[in-house]
Amino acid sequence: MMKKMFTKSIIVALLGMITAVPAVQAADMGMKPMMVERAKILKDTGVFGAFNAYKVTQEWALLPAETRMNAVDEVTSLIEKYKGKVLVDMYLTRGLEAQSDFLIRLHAYDLKSDQEFMVEFAATTLGRYSMPTETLVGVTKALNYIDKKQSPSLNAGLKSATYSAAPPRYFLVVPVKKSAEWWNMTQEERLKKMEEHTAPTLAYLVNVKRKLYHSTGIDDTDFITYFETDDIEAFNNLMISLASVPENLYQPRWGSPLILGTIHTPEEVVKALAM
Amino acid sequence: MMKKMFTKSIIVALLGMITAVPAVQAADMGMKPMMVERAKILKDTGVFGAFNAYKVTQEWALLPAETRMNAVDEVTSLIEKYKGKVLVDMYLTRGLEAQSDFLIRLHAYDLKSDQEFMVEFAATTLGRYSMPTETLVGVTKALNYIDKKQSPSLNAGLKSATYSAAPPRYFLVVPVKKSAEWWNMTQEERLKKMEEHTAPTLAYLVNVKRKLYHSTGIDDTDFITYFETDDIEAFNNLMISLASVPENLYQPRWGSPLILGTIHTPEEVVKALAM
Amino acid sequence: MMKKMFTKSIIVALLGMITAVPAVQAADMGMKPMMVERAKILKDTGVFGAFNAYKVTQEWALLPAETRMNAVDEVTSLIEKYKGKVLVDMYLTRGLEAQSDFLIRLHAYDLKSDQEFMVEFAATTLGRYSMPTETLVGVTKALNYIDKKQSPSLNAGLKSATYSAAPPRYFLVVPVKKSAEWWNMTQEERLKKMEEHTAPTLAYLVNVKRKLYHSTGIDDTDFITYFETDDIEAFNNLMISLASVPENLYQPRWGSPLILGTIHTPEEVVKALAM
Amino acid sequence: MMKKMFTKSIIVALLGMITAVPAVQAADMGMKPMMVERAKILKDTGVFGAFNAYKVTQEWALLPAETRMNAVDEVTSLIEKYKGKVLVDMYLTRGLEAQSDFLIRLHAYDLKSDQEFMVEFAATTLGRYSMPTETLVGVTKALNYIDKKQSPSLNAGLKSATYSAAPPRYFLVVPVKKSAEWWNMTQEERLKKMEEHTAPTLAYLVNVKRKLYHSTGIDDTDFITYFETDDIEAFNNLMISLASVPENLYQPRWGSPLILGTIHTPEEVVKALAM
Amino acid sequence: MMKKMFTKSIIVALLGMITAVPAVQAADMGMKPMMVERAKILKDTGVFGAFNAYKVTQEWALLPAETRMNAVDEVTSLIEKYKGKVLVDMYLTRGLEAQSDFLIRLHAYDLKSDQEFMVEFAATTLGRYSMPTETLVGVTKALNYIDKKQSPSLNAGLKSATYSAAPPRYFLVVPVKKSAEWWNMTQEERLKKMEEHTAPTLAYLVNVKRKLYHSTGIDDTDFITYFETDDIEAFNNLMISLASVPENLYQPRWGSPLILGTIHTPEEVVKALAM
Repeated sequence: MMKKMFTKSIIVALLGMITAVPAVQAADMGMKPMMVERAKILKDTGVFGAFNAYKVTQEWALLPAETRMNAVDEVTSLIEKYKGKVLVDMYLTRGLEAQSDFLIRLHAYDLKSDQEFMVEFAATTLGRYSMPTETLVGVTKALNYIDKKQSPSLNAGLKSATYSAAPPRYFLVVPVKKSAEWWNMTQEERLKKMEEHTAPTLAYLVNVKRKLYHSTGIDDTDFITYFETDDIEAFNNLMISLASVPENLYQPRWGSPLILGTIHTPEEVVKALAM
Repeated sequence: MMKKMFTKSIIVALLGMITAVPAVQAADMGMKPMMVERAKILKDTGVFGAFNAYKVTQEWALLPAETRMNAVDEVTSLIEKYKGKVLVDMYLTRGLEAQSDFLIRLHAYDLKSDQEFMVEFAATTLGRYSMPTETLVGVTKALNYIDKKQSPSLNAGLKSATYSAAPPRYFLVVPVKKSAEWWNMTQEERLKKMEEHTAPTLAYLVNVKRKLYHSTGIDDTDFITYFETDDIEAFNNLMISLASVPENLYQPRWGSPLILGTIHTPEEVVKALAM
Repeated sequence: MMKKMFTKSIIVALLGMITAVPAVQAADMGMKPMMVERAKILKDTGVFGAFNAYKVTQEWALLPAETRMNAVDEVTSLIEKYKGKVLVDMYLTRGLEAQSDFLIRLHAYDLKSDQEFMVEFAATTLGRYSMPTETLVGVTKALNYIDKKQSPSLNAGLKSATYSAAPPRYFLVVPVKKSAEWWNMTQEERLKKMEEHTAPTLAYLVNVKRKLYHSTGIDDTDFITYFETDDIEAFNNLMISLASVPENLYQPRWGSPLILGTIHTPEEVVKALAM
Repeated sequence: MMKKMFTKSIIVALLGMITAVPAVQAADMGMKPMMVERAKILKDTGVFGAFNAYKVTQEWALLPAETRMNAVDEVTSLIEKYKGKVLVDMYLTRGLEAQSDFLIRLHAYDLKSDQEFMVEFAATTLGRYSMPTETLVGVTKALNYIDKKQSPSLNAGLKSATYSAAPPRYFLVVPVKKSAEWWNMTQEERLKKMEEHTAPTLAYLVNVKRKLYHSTGIDDTDFITYFETDDIEAFNNLMISLASVPENLYQPRWGSPLILGTIHTPEEVVKALAM
Repeated sequence: MMKKMFTKSIIVALLGMITAVPAVQAADMGMKPMMVERAKILKDTGVFGAFNAYKVTQEWALLPAETRMNAVDEVTSLIEKYKGKVLVDMYLTRGLEAQSDFLIRLHAYDLKSDQEFMVEFAATTLGRYSMPTETLVGVTKALNYIDKKQSPSLNAGLKSATYSAAPPRYFLVVPVKKSAEWWNMTQEERLKKMEEHTAPTLAYLVNVKRKLYHSTGIDDTDFITYFETDDIEAFNNLMISLASVPENLYQPRWGSPLILGTIHTPEEVVKALAM
């Protein structure tokens, strides 16, 4: 039974203080540590990727500057706490996207770990003053079409070059949904179209990094395509060439939302929001 | 006539105290107890299933931690009170879905009982600080196509295996709407397509549980498909095979929203939200 | 010029007291009493039906319980005040619909009377703490197709049976929009399709009540179909049979939203919301 | 630099007082008076019409009744101030539309004058507590098809009758968008379809008033059709006949939103909202 | 750790004072000055244009008038601070668009600079009390079709006339998305359609200014078309002629939203909002 009367402002103040206490334990969610290495988990199959776009609320801007700045440590501590089982990246979308201010990308071998991190994040000061506006979940898999067996020369092409441009400052997330007509084609028909899709992309291996997640039935999209680049105009050219192949006739969703932002450390992202 | 002046904060505090008083009676809604058994009601036909996705409001996070924690008992007491006539399951979607934080699934022999529970839930502290974001209502029925008579061998296939994987930690809800063209086909034509639909699903009986609700005319969907699994990648493969049969050409809605989350006790769900 | 300083909480308190004063007159809206009889107005043509779905705001739940309970009398008094010119029904959708908590259905011989009631309702405590989420307006007319002259045997079928099941506890509102192709067919072509539509519905005359409103050009739908039943599964079967006739190929909107709820007295509805 | 500490309630009170001070001047927007006559501007071509639908916020209802009532004079004074260059009409949509409470229709020979009025309106008490929910902008032009030269007999028909029914109490706004197929037809093809469109409307000249605004490229619609009538059922019949001609096959947008409301003086509209 | 208790109103007041302190530095975002000249950057290719539409919140109107007026200097100072690397234009959409009150258009040789400005803008008083409602990002490129080589005579036509009407008071932003069918046509087929598109636009070179941004894959549109004019009716005629060529059959998005507003100095825009 509650005895004391709290005014809203006292509650806000108390919340401010919460930021100084250690992050509480995720209750009854059975975390069992498991080692996560950045380079490895970003290449492994069977990895669950989750993209969470957030918008800070108007009230965030009314918090004392000190409280907002304390949120930085709170977020970095949480990331540190989870480093054994979840790889966490944060991005800044403010100013480039109306629907979000920042994006959190997670990778874990167990989807539940992604969720556990997000549940704890929601309990931080930044999490309490942010609303998720888009969540995308997918899983990494081996190549479906352009592998050594089905399409050996294009597969060799894919391996012939690697990213060699300036370190990417931009990322893009593009959800893609294929039509029922696409899925009802044979593997051969789809392979042909994916070859047409892949050919013009070879030239961009040097300045656009790419990663693919499969989402059919686990989200309202079939694929999440994730890109990093330092050359937005080159990326625009790449995407025009992908728009111009027959495969695109089978894509009722391509973006919607397309999310564009910049790559930073989590500390930089929270500081930019706390300005 | 109101005599005392209440400040908003006093009202918030009073509301906090409400959590300690016994849940009030649903006024004039004619509840008549009727026994509900989990195993039975999940298999019976003529059962009303209701799925209610909720988002907690920003103000929830500003309540004193004690008030939030008291909400746990309040919810579990309400579930206990209704156990004779409504089977209540709660799920955690926070971190995996932007549009909701938790989901309540109800089963009752009388749809009105589902509503009575939800009306009382709305009067709890958690209910007062949550907004429903999606509600789906359906009824269970006997098999329409793949029964012993119309499709004996596939029907046998469906019965040949049962779930034998690790206890499912994940659930998925996928609303499905069929086009007018679908409904205007003959039963034979639709049976053929449902056989093509069913064949590739047999392999997943061991690691994906499934339940179907019929919603034509009682909601803006024709079916609610509900799944439980511990293997999200296997589920993704199952859904790709369902996307790849001709039946899918007649499905203007498949998801939208698809809801993905984790399976917990109600106590665990409310505690995670109260962190 | 305002002299006194009002705090928000004093305003809230004052608002609470407003509930005890008699409802103010609709200013300058020229009401002229006209007798409304339930049985007659529900059968007459040239009657304006208005459906107003509402969602209570989060602040409603923070009002003192006494203020919420006072809202009951305020609403019933307003309905009494208008009984000479508007027939008012209230329904509970909370727990079955995410987008609304209650629905008000109005019938009047003059559409302006419907609006006058709603304007005064908006000034009640419940109205001040509710937001309309959907409004549908239509007018009743004589039968367009299945009348004695155009389709005598089906017309006789429609008159051969009346509702004889348990008193309906559920209502459903389903807006229907026909395509430009539909409206460009001849009356004969449409009559044929409406006969196909009507035949399978005869069997449900005993357990589903139906009422039709015409809305072309006065709302973003062509028809509002309103149903009452006590047997939701039978209703689901009726709607499947309506989905399965060629007429349905010309219906780009069927629901969206479909609104499902329960039938109560206005007093019961407001009490349930005031819990 | 701000010296005093303002509580939110003091700010609300101060805002209430603002209503008594003369409306401030639109800063640096270069108004140059120009005479507007109702009868003339409603017939002239090259006139800019703007339709602004508004929803009052929940906070409006919490203002002291006196402040709400003071808003009446503030709005009528502003209309008076602009009468030389903008013709302002206000309508009540509350109770008939979920998305708005009132509508402002403006006519000016210079679109910028419409905007200047709206900017000052936004600074009134009612404007501060209202959110625009829909804005439509169009320009009046000479007849495109049914003129003396292209379609002499129908043109004569259009001039053969004028509105002779009871003064209209209702208005309707229906945005219409034509498809790319429509615009790619020849003038002759479109003329033929517009003749089919016009023929059935002649019978309604006596009880439905109509006005057309062109919006291609200046808003997300091609036309804004505005109607006044006292006979909503006749209007419904007119719109059914417009739905039933081939032209309608080329109209992807017809309404969405269709806006229905009642005709009042601005004073009546603000008083109804201030109840 | 926070020691003092802040009431919401004190925070609002403190925020008011923030407006007088110098804008804080963008943390760790690596700004490197680079000279921006208006005339040059508006003609160069490889320039990143960003369009950010904003809606002020209801709370903005409750701030003391002095605080709102201080916001003017804060915005102009920020623009001054960035003038070396970002060209900033502000427009007023209030009263002409429901979804926004103002628009910021940015040009920079580095997209990141656009974002840096927007992040600092979000930290100003106006930024804190505004929500972005639409963001469009594109890049300028050389002509794709109507260049000297592919279409010499039309290219000459484009150069034959320049804007000679009164200084434009209006701007329009129209996002355009082409279909997959469009992108799958050959360059020759698309060139032919772009010639049909360009021919009728020559007559409007004298009274409509135009600028094109490419967005495929970097936003949910393919092009952002930006116009300035003083003659809205002429613009409407131009857009009708663009709607009437075959190219338009390949444009699933044309506007949505189309944004219309007036051209002002930043100072004028903020003052109009601060009225």
